[in-house]
Amino acid sequence: MFSRFVALPFLLFAVCAPAFADQAAPAPSKPAATVVSPNGELSVTASTDSENRPYYSVSRRGKPLISPSRLGFIFNDAPKLERNIALAGQQTRSFDETWEQPWGEQHFIRNHYNELRVTYKETAKPFRSFDVVFRVYDDGLGFRYEFSQQGTLGQIRIGEELTEFDLAEDGTAWWIPAGEFNRAEQLYQRTAIGEVGYAQTPITFKLADGSHLSIHEAALVDYSGMNLIRVENRRLKAQLTDGIGGPKVVRDAPFHTPWRTLQVSDTAGGLVESSLILNLNEPNQLDDVSWFKPMKYVGVWWEMHLDKKTWSSGPKHGASNENVMRHIDFAAANGFGGVLVEGWNVGWDGDWFGNGEDFSFTQPYPDFDIDKLAAYARSKGVQLIGHHETSGHAAHYESQLDAAFALDQREGIHMVKTGYVADAGQAKVIGTDGKLHYAWHEGQDMARHYQKVVTEAAKYQVAINSHEPIKDTGLRRTWPNWVSREGARGMEYNAWGNPGNPPEHEANLVFTRMLAGPMDFTPGVFGMQTKPGSRVATTWAKQLALYVVIYSPIQMAADLLENYEANPGPFQFIKDVPTDWEETRVLAGEVGDFVVTARRERDGNDWYLGAITDEQPRTLKVPLSFLSPGREYVAQIYRDGPDADWDKRPESIVIEQRKVDSGDTLELILAPGGGQAIRFVAE
Amino acid sequence: MFSRFVALPFLLFAVCAPAFADQAAPAPSKPAATVVSPNGELSVTASTDSENRPYYSVSRRGKPLISPSRLGFIFNDAPKLERNIALAGQQTRSFDETWEQPWGEQHFIRNHYNELRVTYKETAKPFRSFDVVFRVYDDGLGFRYEFSQQGTLGQIRIGEELTEFDLAEDGTAWWIPAGEFNRAEQLYQRTAIGEVGYAQTPITFKLADGSHLSIHEAALVDYSGMNLIRVENRRLKAQLTDGIGGPKVVRDAPFHTPWRTLQVSDTAGGLVESSLILNLNEPNQLDDVSWFKPMKYVGVWWEMHLDKKTWSSGPKHGASNENVMRHIDFAAANGFGGVLVEGWNVGWDGDWFGNGEDFSFTQPYPDFDIDKLAAYARSKGVQLIGHHETSGHAAHYESQLDAAFALDQREGIHMVKTGYVADAGQAKVIGTDGKLHYAWHEGQDMARHYQKVVTEAAKYQVAINSHEPIKDTGLRRTWPNWVSREGARGMEYNAWGNPGNPPEHEANLVFTRMLAGPMDFTPGVFGMQTKPGSRVATTWAKQLALYVVIYSPIQMAADLLENYEANPGPFQFIKDVPTDWEETRVLAGEVGDFVVTARRERDGNDWYLGAITDEQPRTLKVPLSFLSPGREYVAQIYRDGPDADWDKRPESIVIEQRKVDSGDTLELILAPGGGQAIRFVAE
Repeated sequence: MFSRFVALPFLLFAVCAPAFADQAAPAPSKPAATVVSPNGELSVTASTDSENRPYYSVSRRGKPLISPSRLGFIFNDAPKLERNIALAGQQTRSFDETWEQPWGEQHFIRNHYNELRVTYKETAKPFRSFDVVFRVYDDGLGFRYEFSQQGTLGQIRIGEELTEFDLAEDGTAWWIPAGEFNRAEQLYQRTAIGEVGYAQTPITFKLADGSHLSIHEAALVDYSGMNLIRVENRRLKAQLTDGIGGPKVVRDAPFHTPWRTLQVSDTAGGLVESSLILNLNEPNQLDDVSWFKPMKYVGVWWEMHLDKKTWSSGPKHGASNENVMRHIDFAAANGFGGVLVEGWNVGWDGDWFGNGEDFSFTQPYPDFDIDKLAAYARSKGVQLIGHHETSGHAAHYESQLDAAFALDQREGIHMVKTGYVADAGQAKVIGTDGKLHYAWHEGQDMARHYQKVVTEAAKYQVAINSHEPIKDTGLRRTWPNWVSREGARGMEYNAWGNPGNPPEHEANLVFTRMLAGPMDFTPGVFGMQTKPGSRVATTWAKQLALYVVIYSPIQMAADLLENYEANPGPFQFIKDVPTDWEETRVLAGEVGDFVVTARRERDGNDWYLGAITDEQPRTLKVPLSFLSPGREYVAQIYRDGPDADWDKRPESIVIEQRKVDSGDTLELILAPGGGQAIRFVAE
Repeated sequence: MFSRFVALPFLLFAVCAPAFADQAAPAPSKPAATVVSPNGELSVTASTDSENRPYYSVSRRGKPLISPSRLGFIFNDAPKLERNIALAGQQTRSFDETWEQPWGEQHFIRNHYNELRVTYKETAKPFRSFDVVFRVYDDGLGFRYEFSQQGTLGQIRIGEELTEFDLAEDGTAWWIPAGEFNRAEQLYQRTAIGEVGYAQTPITFKLADGSHLSIHEAALVDYSGMNLIRVENRRLKAQLTDGIGGPKVVRDAPFHTPWRTLQVSDTAGGLVESSLILNLNEPNQLDDVSWFKPMKYVGVWWEMHLDKKTWSSGPKHGASNENVMRHIDFAAANGFGGVLVEGWNVGWDGDWFGNGEDFSFTQPYPDFDIDKLAAYARSKGVQLIGHHETSGHAAHYESQLDAAFALDQREGIHMVKTGYVADAGQAKVIGTDGKLHYAWHEGQDMARHYQKVVTEAAKYQVAINSHEPIKDTGLRRTWPNWVSREGARGMEYNAWGNPGNPPEHEANLVFTRMLAGPMDFTPGVFGMQTKPGSRVATTWAKQLALYVVIYSPIQMAADLLENYEANPGPFQFIKDVPTDWEETRVLAGEVGDFVVTARRERDGNDWYLGAITDEQPRTLKVPLSFLSPGREYVAQIYRDGPDADWDKRPESIVIEQRKVDSGDTLELILAPGGGQAIRFVAE
């Protein structure tokens, strides 16, 4: 690891400020500040316009990427921060450091940026000032607002953030709507940029010139999540998630906002390879987290979605001693680290959806002998994975948090899956007024809650896998026990008797949701016929490939155990595939169409390749130049059979092996809705 | 006037509820309620979907117009009102009444609708209930939510209204963005429905089948104004205007929301002729308002926008005794009822934009002798028109409200133009916590303020013409002293040295903003060259036609007096044209292209016609069948000259007259950016 600070020379010059409004007069020259990326390709300028409003703009290789776009705030108890503003100062610096991930899709990450800090100052009363800090990387940029104690009004009550992103060029967007009842669990839609509606982030664009862009945020801490409203044309404005009936954000100065991020790449895969979101987060605050081990796990779970078992008590109760022991045995026999058990605790017998006040996080159902089961698991080198379904009732959950995690610690449970199943806007928190308020999953109060759960859990050496989470903004760098999340349509949507996820779904996820961070997608289902009306719309080979293309340090083998027992051939790949990586390369891909990803196991020499396609069959030529030159590998190939088809022959799979080296090129033949998984065993 | 109530038979039957979400299961049959318009063409159905969420849908002539669309609320202190809901009851009734306007674009208005009241009830705790009332007219519908005291939680704190409008068909939309710094003062944009962004209402659509639709609201009282976010595809959702950092709406039950309105018509002109918004408002609560007389007025105003005079004190002060007396003399000589004087009061000498705390609404500048001038005006049969610029500081204004209106009453001033020049979100009100809050012009607190100003003014027999207003929702029916508003880009935008309003602007306004209610557009400018860089982009004939096509009971002759004195020919039409009407017909028109409007003077036989076009020259054949059959009229025609062109020869006008009757057809030749105004004098 190395770190370097270099002071860059001041770049202060005058630009002719652009006219925002049709009525703007020809603008006089204004002070402006510019910073460029280390490779010189990306350039950010901050200035003020003819009406003395702050703005920033971005260009890439000399061509506009973000047209001049607004900055500023509306406050509830103070005049807005937007007019009568001058660029009063600027500082630049350069930073270059390589840091180590405790676990991740790559072991070492280079954090190399040039930074511009501009100070904006009001030229009329109340003469407040604020800084905007831009960090410009070769693969994108982040910027955030910083408020010092001076010049502000102590407590800041934000009504809205005025940040905008005015895309300079037309193109295509992949996005899911914001403000919806099912949180982030919608199918991604592909529209023209000019047809984007009200969108969540990350949102992905392919511009007319072929470049790819993603807008998101990093380090969402004690603030409200940012959605984007396309106001008109290609102009997107920040829309902070609603609070609890108060200001959208209440903070005491000094404070800073999350980073607003833009990742940019010539290729779709470049967005996936970017570590910009992580780099903009604060370093690890937990020090040693070696008690968390990346792992695969099985669970008492899929059988409930198929109505073979129940979360609630009764004759079909899934979390019975017998059923859990069977899962422990299976995990131990196949080298899996954990067994998730849902429905183990009291509270599932009523109408729990969106309620949650009946859940106990310490009291098991009588047929779940937690002491015995945890000890049995430990004796087999397996751990139980805890489950805390809150139904969004964060206040109720917080009242039991310490007791719950203390129980986990006693039982040797180092990971808990949390759940917040409630409609959007229906989480429940205690406000500063001491009263219960309904809240959005991504409002400031819930942002605090999710953070509290993770940091409290760390004290008990528990890792968190949040379902129905606040969106991922890279906080796993800071709290590496926040290991995974849901936050998208996972496998479960294929179970419920409805059409489920279409074949393009995962090829969308890789280039959209996955840019935010790990997802507990729960792949690996071989039983394609689920409940009547439903099915899993992939081939078996694609199910295997998902373990490579969808990154998470914990990966479930989601299917019924009997489906694995009956199919040891393809199951072998699930047993073999690691969940922690030394390095990652996206070899090819187009958003929503296909992707080919190669990852090298952490501290090892074996490579793993995953390729998936949408409903289109595809033949892809993949040079194996990522392999170590001069070394021989045995490629253990799990490919679609000649008649494979997600709709007609999903189970058609060919398992074969051949010797390859870095000079070879493989031809991957992917069936409709198909894929391919390969393990390259270094000789 | 007559009124009739008819109880309609119950219409209770089962429909197959539509699936909203992709994961919805095939729905069982649900109780549904339907009501049709008096002519049977428009049909509204209310029911619940497969997930027990309430919805409504609309069809016209058997064809879907609004696909099943959500109803409901998110609250800040209580569970949302959306799921576990059953249609628990319904009532229908019919209403037919013709009522008289004290002034207006038509004297008598028929209010004829069939009403459906459905009661929705939660099937799980907290077992709340609410009603949705639909009033279905031949030309559209309105619906509102009603909360009784029973079944609610006393004080209701609304986080968001969940109402949606999912347009069943594609088409074109004309709209202005919401949430913007310049309130409603943007140019209307025309986009595909699928490209609408974040829009204010009214928003106008032309669907693929040629029908026209407008979504707006009626009777916005003690509630937050509704904007529309296009979430995805053609699905628009209500987005209530932000409050003051609390819930968007706080109300004690019982209460009802404003009406959510849809006007529908085969023609663009049909939308303009519709009285649906007025019909959905409560009747006149002021009784006799004969102290307000519709009128034309001149003002100490345009010369300020041209920098010839100033609002502030000093050598160029516009509101000097001498200048005002000159305007009084001119008004008296030409039959105008009033003289607006801006800049008459102390407070204009500082930086007043968005501030406002220095304004006195009772203390004139020393060179404005209000007693003398008001008396002089009265002696000439003219009245002064007051002006209260608040800079959005509603709290400061309210502290002087009574004193200000008492002064007006003493001076015989029966009309006041108010102003709220402040950025969006920067109005200032005192909250229920006694503290000063920043507020949006259309939030609940400001809705209360505008209403308070109007109702207080009525006590002093003062009419209100609000600039930078809350949007018009037809409240002039209830408080007929709320006579006009700005709330769009008026003539002033042509003065300021910038491009100003394009030739299509007024042809947009007629079919968009004007659907809300009267606008104080301030037409009648002959001096086309304004400040360098600006101009008035119409012909003179079009300026005259605006007095007919843009309705307001008060119409300014906005130009410098010398421009009228120098051009007595065209000025004659401005002198002649009434501002109060017996009936109105839109004879032809397309949104944003052109319109031909005919109006008959109130209690008289003369008709007036206004025709305007956008930048395209047009020849329109207009049958005069609206004239009384068998009667002869002298048509006094003010038409574009053969070489007229807004850009090159705006002043080219031909004034001529000819005899016509109802069997004639006139050919109107409109120049680029041109128009035509005709007075038909009944013989």
